[in-house]
Amino acid sequence: MKKRILISLGGNALGTEFEDLVNTVGVIADPVADLIAQGNEVVICHGNGPQVGYIKSNLDKGVRSEGGDTMMPLSECVAMSQSFIGYHLQNALQNRLIEKNIDPSVATVVTRVIVDPKDPKFDNPTKPIGAFYTLEESKELEAAGKTMVEDSGRGYREVVASPIPQEILERKAILDLMDKGNVVIAGGGGGIPTIRDGNWYKAIDAVIDKDRTSVILAADTKCDSLVIVTGVEKVSINFNKPNQEDLDKMTLADCEKYIEEGQFPEGSMLPKIEAAMDFVKSGKGRTTLITSLDKLVEGMKGETGTLIVE
Amino acid sequence: MKKRILISLGGNALGTEFEDLVNTVGVIADPVADLIAQGNEVVICHGNGPQVGYIKSNLDKGVRSEGGDTMMPLSECVAMSQSFIGYHLQNALQNRLIEKNIDPSVATVVTRVIVDPKDPKFDNPTKPIGAFYTLEESKELEAAGKTMVEDSGRGYREVVASPIPQEILERKAILDLMDKGNVVIAGGGGGIPTIRDGNWYKAIDAVIDKDRTSVILAADTKCDSLVIVTGVEKVSINFNKPNQEDLDKMTLADCEKYIEEGQFPEGSMLPKIEAAMDFVKSGKGRTTLITSLDKLVEGMKGETGTLIVE
Repeated sequence: MKKRILISLGGNALGTEFEDLVNTVGVIADPVADLIAQGNEVVICHGNGPQVGYIKSNLDKGVRSEGGDTMMPLSECVAMSQSFIGYHLQNALQNRLIEKNIDPSVATVVTRVIVDPKDPKFDNPTKPIGAFYTLEESKELEAAGKTMVEDSGRGYREVVASPIPQEILERKAILDLMDKGNVVIAGGGGGIPTIRDGNWYKAIDAVIDKDRTSVILAADTKCDSLVIVTGVEKVSINFNKPNQEDLDKMTLADCEKYIEEGQFPEGSMLPKIEAAMDFVKSGKGRTTLITSLDKLVEGMKGETGTLIVE
Repeated sequence: MKKRILISLGGNALGTEFEDLVNTVGVIADPVADLIAQGNEVVICHGNGPQVGYIKSNLDKGVRSEGGDTMMPLSECVAMSQSFIGYHLQNALQNRLIEKNIDPSVATVVTRVIVDPKDPKFDNPTKPIGAFYTLEESKELEAAGKTMVEDSGRGYREVVASPIPQEILERKAILDLMDKGNVVIAGGGGGIPTIRDGNWYKAIDAVIDKDRTSVILAADTKCDSLVIVTGVEKVSINFNKPNQEDLDKMTLADCEKYIEEGQFPEGSMLPKIEAAMDFVKSGKGRTTLITSLDKLVEGMKGETGTLIVE
């Protein structure tokens, strides 16, 4: 059965080193092209951790190496990472589709995501980004309004908040493209963090969780299915214990029970389960599949992965 | 009368220094928002000279400052400049439209443009890009396949070719967005230079003239009108002479006559006139307006600028 699917690709799927990207997009493109060739409508949302880090730290180091002190705002770096990654994904995906004798239009849409400047996460920024600085540099940057932390003995880094995404500003454009049969890449890196300042849209330094943005984007684009691509084929309970159980299916009630039992580690599987549940709750008949990239096609056939249903 | 208009914004309109961008987009957004508020459908194509130069030279310097030697391919830098500039234009434009109580969807589409690898321009690259290097560094880079030139006593720079754009790969997506009422920013910097290598799309180091890309994009999106925004209110003949004449209108025949007389300097007004003519020739009733940014709204009312007609 043909479906409209949002594929949420983790940062790891794109490679953890910046230079991996060109090789990695090929690996990603293969199963995604298979899903498109089967007639599914696909929108892709991807992470950007290593890429945005590379862009920001090298631009900042480049400017400093010539005696400048402008730091590139994170929002612009997220914007740059969206077209950089999107461009590579587009090329890889379109090349594989042409091999299959189909040539749909594939487009990358620069995506801004509204966050609340009063989000409590802004009081406690925790996500390190960009280059490492000396203590002296770090003090200068703190004086200029940045929050800096010492990072594992490697130097000082800026930390930013990870507020909850509220609204995708390009939702109409992305839905229009889907409705006209285009494959769309959007919401890269969770989106460019944007606030409403009175009537105006303005950038803010933050990083947005890409799985949470995926849920909003999947609902906005009327997807039947959200696929969260991660490092494991199936979600497990009693992970790494003698009684480990790999799950084929979970209802919302199962998810709640397992969360209460503390089955899913915070900062890794828990936010994915929460995103999965949010999408299932967003509309009748909607399901979320959690699986690994190499099992994507089988997973969509119902042969593997963990399916979260109402 | 409501029209579909492609606005081609020169690099100068975006500011010649990278840091100008945030201020300059506001100046650009005002007249463009006026045209949209009057009910016109607008697609924007912009230059990226100073921005792509900044991105490339600082990324390369940043990598070198840590002992690395990867040079960021120009194609990726063009991609990054598209979302960077597009993002700022989108914010500025949407903010001004909200002030006018309209809130259309504004979207930036990452745009690849096909060029011919056998284009004779590739035999004679002339466009300097990115950072300045020492003679020793320049020799290393030449050994690695780059073409380097000495640039006005300031050091050595890479030069790339400026081939003729042939096809916009995202033309369907961009037209779909226009047809659904979205304001679109596309073809930034003339597009990401792409070649067909067998059946595959592949990047190539080059820069594409944004006015030429604008002509293709305007035809692809079925525009009635192409507006080339430049530094002067009107095109002149006998420029800077006692008998200088500012032109309200030129037919294709007039253009040919003036070109033959050598009225338009190569590398500045001549390519704009050629682009203007190409668009007029592309379809019945199509016209090109050449004017300055501050005269854009008056120009579209027929009150100033130089109109090129069949």
